[in-house]
Amino acid sequence: MKEFMGKDFLLSNPTAEKLYFSFAENQPIIDYHCHVSPKEIYEDKRFDNLFGVWLSGDHYKWRIMRSNGVDERYITGDAPEKEKFLKFAEALPKAIGNPMYHWCHLELKKYFGYEGVLNAETAEEVWELANKKLAEPDMTVRGIIKKSNVCFIGTTDDPVDSLEWHLKLKEDSTFDVTVAPTFRPDKAFNIEKSGWREYIKILSEISDTVIDSVSALKSALLKRIEFFDKCGCRASDHGLDYMVYKAVPCEETERIMKKALSGETVTAAEAEAFKTELLLFCAAEYSKRGWVMQLHYNCLRNPNSKMFEALGPDTGFDCIGPKESCAALSMLLDALYRTSSLPKTVIYSLDAADNAFIDTLIGAFQGPEVAGKLQHGSAWWFNDNKTGMQEQLLSLANLSLLGNFVGMLTDSRSFLSYTRHEYFRRILCDVIGSLVENGEYPNDDKALGSIVKGICYENAKRYFNI
Amino acid sequence: MKEFMGKDFLLSNPTAEKLYFSFAENQPIIDYHCHVSPKEIYEDKRFDNLFGVWLSGDHYKWRIMRSNGVDERYITGDAPEKEKFLKFAEALPKAIGNPMYHWCHLELKKYFGYEGVLNAETAEEVWELANKKLAEPDMTVRGIIKKSNVCFIGTTDDPVDSLEWHLKLKEDSTFDVTVAPTFRPDKAFNIEKSGWREYIKILSEISDTVIDSVSALKSALLKRIEFFDKCGCRASDHGLDYMVYKAVPCEETERIMKKALSGETVTAAEAEAFKTELLLFCAAEYSKRGWVMQLHYNCLRNPNSKMFEALGPDTGFDCIGPKESCAALSMLLDALYRTSSLPKTVIYSLDAADNAFIDTLIGAFQGPEVAGKLQHGSAWWFNDNKTGMQEQLLSLANLSLLGNFVGMLTDSRSFLSYTRHEYFRRILCDVIGSLVENGEYPNDDKALGSIVKGICYENAKRYFNI
Amino acid sequence: MKEFMGKDFLLSNPTAEKLYFSFAENQPIIDYHCHVSPKEIYEDKRFDNLFGVWLSGDHYKWRIMRSNGVDERYITGDAPEKEKFLKFAEALPKAIGNPMYHWCHLELKKYFGYEGVLNAETAEEVWELANKKLAEPDMTVRGIIKKSNVCFIGTTDDPVDSLEWHLKLKEDSTFDVTVAPTFRPDKAFNIEKSGWREYIKILSEISDTVIDSVSALKSALLKRIEFFDKCGCRASDHGLDYMVYKAVPCEETERIMKKALSGETVTAAEAEAFKTELLLFCAAEYSKRGWVMQLHYNCLRNPNSKMFEALGPDTGFDCIGPKESCAALSMLLDALYRTSSLPKTVIYSLDAADNAFIDTLIGAFQGPEVAGKLQHGSAWWFNDNKTGMQEQLLSLANLSLLGNFVGMLTDSRSFLSYTRHEYFRRILCDVIGSLVENGEYPNDDKALGSIVKGICYENAKRYFNI
Repeated sequence: MKEFMGKDFLLSNPTAEKLYFSFAENQPIIDYHCHVSPKEIYEDKRFDNLFGVWLSGDHYKWRIMRSNGVDERYITGDAPEKEKFLKFAEALPKAIGNPMYHWCHLELKKYFGYEGVLNAETAEEVWELANKKLAEPDMTVRGIIKKSNVCFIGTTDDPVDSLEWHLKLKEDSTFDVTVAPTFRPDKAFNIEKSGWREYIKILSEISDTVIDSVSALKSALLKRIEFFDKCGCRASDHGLDYMVYKAVPCEETERIMKKALSGETVTAAEAEAFKTELLLFCAAEYSKRGWVMQLHYNCLRNPNSKMFEALGPDTGFDCIGPKESCAALSMLLDALYRTSSLPKTVIYSLDAADNAFIDTLIGAFQGPEVAGKLQHGSAWWFNDNKTGMQEQLLSLANLSLLGNFVGMLTDSRSFLSYTRHEYFRRILCDVIGSLVENGEYPNDDKALGSIVKGICYENAKRYFNI
Repeated sequence: MKEFMGKDFLLSNPTAEKLYFSFAENQPIIDYHCHVSPKEIYEDKRFDNLFGVWLSGDHYKWRIMRSNGVDERYITGDAPEKEKFLKFAEALPKAIGNPMYHWCHLELKKYFGYEGVLNAETAEEVWELANKKLAEPDMTVRGIIKKSNVCFIGTTDDPVDSLEWHLKLKEDSTFDVTVAPTFRPDKAFNIEKSGWREYIKILSEISDTVIDSVSALKSALLKRIEFFDKCGCRASDHGLDYMVYKAVPCEETERIMKKALSGETVTAAEAEAFKTELLLFCAAEYSKRGWVMQLHYNCLRNPNSKMFEALGPDTGFDCIGPKESCAALSMLLDALYRTSSLPKTVIYSLDAADNAFIDTLIGAFQGPEVAGKLQHGSAWWFNDNKTGMQEQLLSLANLSLLGNFVGMLTDSRSFLSYTRHEYFRRILCDVIGSLVENGEYPNDDKALGSIVKGICYENAKRYFNI
Repeated sequence: MKEFMGKDFLLSNPTAEKLYFSFAENQPIIDYHCHVSPKEIYEDKRFDNLFGVWLSGDHYKWRIMRSNGVDERYITGDAPEKEKFLKFAEALPKAIGNPMYHWCHLELKKYFGYEGVLNAETAEEVWELANKKLAEPDMTVRGIIKKSNVCFIGTTDDPVDSLEWHLKLKEDSTFDVTVAPTFRPDKAFNIEKSGWREYIKILSEISDTVIDSVSALKSALLKRIEFFDKCGCRASDHGLDYMVYKAVPCEETERIMKKALSGETVTAAEAEAFKTELLLFCAAEYSKRGWVMQLHYNCLRNPNSKMFEALGPDTGFDCIGPKESCAALSMLLDALYRTSSLPKTVIYSLDAADNAFIDTLIGAFQGPEVAGKLQHGSAWWFNDNKTGMQEQLLSLANLSLLGNFVGMLTDSRSFLSYTRHEYFRRILCDVIGSLVENGEYPNDDKALGSIVKGICYENAKRYFNI
């Protein structure tokens, strides 16, 4: 039996161990897609206690608690912080096989030096230890980033963002980790959602553009793309419930936009046409600048409408989406390829059943600009666990070139999540090591080192022009 | 090489063995969903021969025979019973990797003490041995139940059922196994199917209610729910080809019902609206009573219309359904949650591709009434095999709390199927034992024993108020 | 660690090895579905160099190169042949886990005696060695077929084909491998595609039939079916983007056909109705003759329209299809079964998510004509890799009788692809051997030998009347 989360955690054979310790463990981290706050990095924030760094905003943990029948008072309600933590510690042992179990213990070990097991009995000791540690000088946001060997952070930013903190960070010579913004214009796209008109007003002001038409909206977005580009942005991100592709004449999208601006509700088909037009426009602009386009889709957002009204979005109630996105995705890539305006693109579907489709589709749109121009993104969100990662890697290997994969990102709101890169790297080395152990790939350190280092660091470095 | 179905069958490592023998093997069986006859239990039925107990009604076995090119005469036709058995024995060796192969041998070993392999050569000896055994005093239905360590049986019953045998069993102090009815009102729901009007007439009589409207139908169903509740029922079950959610005004469902009562055919959309209304009504009533609602869906029933006309339903011709149910299921749960009328719910899709969706969806509707209020049911029907169970368990572990799972049920028409609980428990212990052996969970007997005993017995006991 | 692609390649335990070497390795190959040229067999073609036999027409390899950012000039363009090969050799090491990696090395070992690893460094030596080998007397098409132990080849042929080379091969007593045509009438079916009218004219001439109606088209196809039957054909093949079943009155299909003949574009629904009618007709004719019907579906053909215009079809740009085919497939089989005109049928979906559906569906339409009358075809195209094959085999085992499976086919355009039968057989023996090693099937050489030899050779021999 292997030690619980010991040195050889997730590494099932000697080759996997060799690959991990020789080629993976010490590679710098490029966290090219996450949701941390550039302000907190600039201000070098400090956390009061384990609740603040673990439970105050992590909807993955809230979900674990709800699945254990914990009352909402102890999750997002007014119960004392420590009691909330105790409720979480009580639920955790039931999360056998859940990545949360491993993430928590990786973080406890790496950042707090805790080698034990978190449960109802040890909760008190963990609470004390962690809070003591959090008071140490190097446990600020920057300290955590540095000790995590991170060299690049790609945040997620709205087009109307002033990028104030990014600009300040750029000028701050005391911090040598690159923090770059990512352009995520979802709010401009979501014409069917409440708040869109208000958002357009803000965008109008920020971009100093009267936005009364689709073409004006494009001008406004273009100004922001240019601004983001100046601020070091090299990637965009789009979050779509499902992929859309509905090409209609310009006059039609202008009509739809006017309808929405006047306060009328647009139909689903109208919203799809509007989003298609914007997506084609933005993608072409990304392409011109060598940006990467990230597409995240197949989510069922806020299925529990009562809790959505009570707690708002991103509070742990989203699901894998039931919508079919494959045909639209294929048509979108085709339209962009035809007009030579397909940027480097990373595709993430929340439905792992799309893995094989994506892996065949990217093969139809590759190009000579960079090896692996089209990418199947790392196992995302609900798939970000051992089996989900193994399946993504094996499907990519079966149907494309695993060796060109740009690898892991945390997609996290927390500064302690960098251990997920360790989690990924161990699984990657185990998948590759097992192929070698089984005689399915030569035991050639040069070839293997190049593949492993590539996926852990070098491919992303090249792909994102870092 | 391991012995064929030996002591360590399906247990691939020492921890798996320890968990199975320490915490799983001897737990009582709660078979909360099956299709056995309460009359046969009350009357303590006895079987003439192996054909009667194995082949007379088991469409899983018929399917094996058909897949081997056996003529229907030897399956459901007029061939002699023993010849039918010989044809089955001939086909079985080709079922390598099929759960039927294991179920048969588990049953032969447990109930008939046969340690050999059933095939064309041994068929004669098995036939003789089993028939001799079946003549022994303790091989009645009650004897089999007792030696299977069953403590609770949830049968499946129509609202018009008098529950005569359940009431008699309740009064019979010589039998201490709880046999409870389950409320399954499919026939009242299936407004689009032939026979619905006739069924409504029977329900009308039994409930002493003139059923000329949806509201009258609700009253009639309510009376039967109250009656079932008095008779010890704590669960309902719904079998739907696919999940429906089409909310329309009351007047519209009344119109649809009138149309159907007058003998007109209703459209698919009308049937969906009608079923949605009834489902919302029934669920709210279950919720009031603390009942569990079971939803079974994604079946393609009777795709072979010629054989359906010849042999009727449930004769081994059903398939996994091609319909998309995820969006409707999500909307149904939302509507119930909004109105605080969502009962404890167990969701079973026949399409294993829905596993991850279900496991994320239940996380959006949990509640503090009981840990794991929303459940993803055990791998059902065509998925009830080693890989299907492993996938259901791992998906549940990845995306929810495996520790709160209510575990196995036989869903069977046969009294010899209790060995499927052994099958499940071995697979469960192997999945969990492997996590421990791989260092992915601590080797802590207290935590592991609590999880394993919970899933085998205690969680269901608590969940079903047994 | 196992040797790279050594003797025990893909065989993970002693039973797997025993099964492979005792029962699988030496079975003759029945390659019942492929795309090799009967002309090249008759003329006993010889290849100039490794480019000709490997890269000139293999779109699997082109895809690998494109995924590595290779410029199209080195793929389908005018770069020198050797340079193209060098580009491929450079890309190959990144294909870790890809079946191409194994196929290449199996072919290099078997046909060229090369025991090393192909990469940028060894490319030159491989090029020299292979070209030298290709000049040896026995490295003609017939020589390769003979040393591959092939006993039957089923080519893929258009109804308008004269079958000239098949007829010549039949009369050639110097070559004892059976080469039979397969009837693939896709072009007659594809009424919605450009070129259909031109094709109908050619069919009209070849069949000496004025084709001005659906019934005339049926007559023409029937003549060709009769001719193919005389020429030794025992199977048909249909390639459909997705399965169709839309039954309409005859007059309606006649109207659709007239519309198309007049040059008007037909709608998708009209094309589906037309194809349904032809499929029902053809299937009944196959059934009368004891032919096997093969159905290949769920492809997304030519999603990259720009490259389609540049390079045409079958150039490495196809994908797994996003269309739902399950309901239509079920209705088609039902319609044929009802009228007693369902032929032996092999079903291949490009979407592995359909595996379980297919495996349950075939169970609903079996018949006594032959064991395993309805078959789930071997893991096809993008699924033709280790995990894809394992999944197809395990799903078939779980839900049907693996013992009746007709096994592998190459589906290849290359004469070096027979090693894919070795690849399949090793995986098959490993799946079965693992069941035995785990105590899930008895270690009985008679039963195991019968299953393995059956799947490798005997089942196909019986099924295709060879």
